[in-house]
Amino acid sequence: MTHPAQLTSYRRILLLTDGYSTPFLAKTAISLLRYRTDDVVGVLDAEHAGQDAGELFGAGHGIPVVDSIVEGTDAVFIGIAPPGGKLPAAWRPTIIEALTRGIDVVSGLHDFLSLDPELTAIAEQHGGTLIDVRKNNEKETATGQPFREGCLRIHTVGQDCSVGKMVASLEIQRELSRRGHDAKFLATGQTGIMISGEGVPIDCVVADFVNGAAERLVRQNDDHDIVLIEGQGSLSHPSFSAVTLGLLHGAAPQGLIFVYEVGRREVKGLDGIELRPFRQLIAAYENAAALRHPCRVIGIAMNGRKVSDEEAAAEKARMESEFGLPVCDVFRDGPGELVDAVIALQQELQR
Amino acid sequence: MTHPAQLTSYRRILLLTDGYSTPFLAKTAISLLRYRTDDVVGVLDAEHAGQDAGELFGAGHGIPVVDSIVEGTDAVFIGIAPPGGKLPAAWRPTIIEALTRGIDVVSGLHDFLSLDPELTAIAEQHGGTLIDVRKNNEKETATGQPFREGCLRIHTVGQDCSVGKMVASLEIQRELSRRGHDAKFLATGQTGIMISGEGVPIDCVVADFVNGAAERLVRQNDDHDIVLIEGQGSLSHPSFSAVTLGLLHGAAPQGLIFVYEVGRREVKGLDGIELRPFRQLIAAYENAAALRHPCRVIGIAMNGRKVSDEEAAAEKARMESEFGLPVCDVFRDGPGELVDAVIALQQELQR
Repeated sequence: MTHPAQLTSYRRILLLTDGYSTPFLAKTAISLLRYRTDDVVGVLDAEHAGQDAGELFGAGHGIPVVDSIVEGTDAVFIGIAPPGGKLPAAWRPTIIEALTRGIDVVSGLHDFLSLDPELTAIAEQHGGTLIDVRKNNEKETATGQPFREGCLRIHTVGQDCSVGKMVASLEIQRELSRRGHDAKFLATGQTGIMISGEGVPIDCVVADFVNGAAERLVRQNDDHDIVLIEGQGSLSHPSFSAVTLGLLHGAAPQGLIFVYEVGRREVKGLDGIELRPFRQLIAAYENAAALRHPCRVIGIAMNGRKVSDEEAAAEKARMESEFGLPVCDVFRDGPGELVDAVIALQQELQR
Repeated sequence: MTHPAQLTSYRRILLLTDGYSTPFLAKTAISLLRYRTDDVVGVLDAEHAGQDAGELFGAGHGIPVVDSIVEGTDAVFIGIAPPGGKLPAAWRPTIIEALTRGIDVVSGLHDFLSLDPELTAIAEQHGGTLIDVRKNNEKETATGQPFREGCLRIHTVGQDCSVGKMVASLEIQRELSRRGHDAKFLATGQTGIMISGEGVPIDCVVADFVNGAAERLVRQNDDHDIVLIEGQGSLSHPSFSAVTLGLLHGAAPQGLIFVYEVGRREVKGLDGIELRPFRQLIAAYENAAALRHPCRVIGIAMNGRKVSDEEAAAEKARMESEFGLPVCDVFRDGPGELVDAVIALQQELQR
């Protein structure tokens, strides 16, 4: 489902994270602070009101944390992605207040606000709109037919959930564009859709149509020279591997960027379940992708948010030597080496 | 979603295949003819009326093909599984007639009959029930937590769609029961649910909850010594691999039965896409399963419906020698050798 004009039209977005302002839970808010900085007017979290968003989240410097809806807000974005996908009950009055003031509400939750009779009635009465970015009506199965030959498909895949696949995709796409390439970011999750204004909420598609939805997203964009398809979950994630493989097979990439977080040992949200070794995971991705289309991992994006610069540099050197691939922390090092790898693959495939 | 009592309570089922009586499209009807023979009163297909179901489908000998709803019918079952999942428009009058006569209608289509206002109004007025076996409200993510240790989980996986995974699961379960083992068949598709009266319509679950739905199905049944989990799609199917992997990881089997059809070369329904070699597929299944739980292929079910007895015997010998595994055509040879392999794995894991 695409929301072309509307989602990117907002210029005074209030991010709602009230009571959930942790890096894991508020990852939607943090990404919007980072990639739509100029469009965000504030972050609503009563507990932290008065602080600066940059201080609280490490992104969005100069944007205030507030305790009520800011005058002139044109949309309230639900800034969290809780595992269950439900609206916190305590947030209902704020949603109602926004709608009563005619303000649009944008949500990426699994529980659709637009199916709530009370909220839709208020929205209708006051002229606001409820947008559920995860709502979709994908009902086409994948065809397995080839994409346009000149379209290079790069897909980010991960060691786990929430390791930075979207960020790596966006940073690589932006650097490719800066260098003059025709590259497009293709969002597959609620946050990516809120940032780019379009995409497919792949984890909310009915299972039989997951591959088909991913295929359609790529086919509608295969006029671009390069597409960066945002990854989801992990092939080894006990809860979300169905989403990951459907996306991998629907998008049929030629190149993969493997994304991981330095120091992570266990599956996010599932205590006591160890992550698989990198070598096993990389082989699993390459073998699974090859069932659909020839493909290989061309680079590694390491997320070093929890380690010092020194530790990050040592890790980068170690990983490069172990895997013989370019390794970047896209925030510390920039995505340059990964972009070089993308271009090298493009040239190889054109020969 | 389970439909415990209701689906198995019908004793005079009319199967609707009107105009779609081919082995591929009518596979739901054929399986009901085979596994609920005594509960089927007729097959409705005007074109073939007067024939015997056994003659038309190779199953259900003695059951008539008719051109209208049989007197005393207690349920009309939609007997087809079209790839798109939509109700053929020409069938609407028959559905309406059944409901008007107070007869229940059971459907496995993706398009839910119970969401059709006209049909639900008629059903309500005349006391019939519309049952969509694919309808579900699965909303729990998988936990990845272990199952009861004494529960052996055997899962059928395939070369492709429609190769006989459900049939192999059912035949193995029945033979295990005949030998006195506590074994249960766990349905994951519409036909299996119509046969056994319960299960999870896994291909119609929202992507984020596919693994979770499979895990819940197994956990609710892990008091049994052996569960036979019906497989879906194929890990290499361009359209349905998401379903296949979610089921594999949710069910976390210790043993797999690999199912294929002798002579099949291309992916069903996708012309021109070649199937992958057995060796690559078997490795792919074992490696993918191992990301979640130690597991290996313990036997091969070959579907020899299109070849002679001689060709089948030669194929069986060739495959046994190539893979060093028991190979059965469960209809020709019976499932005995696969059942032996299941018991051997059970003993190995108990040591």
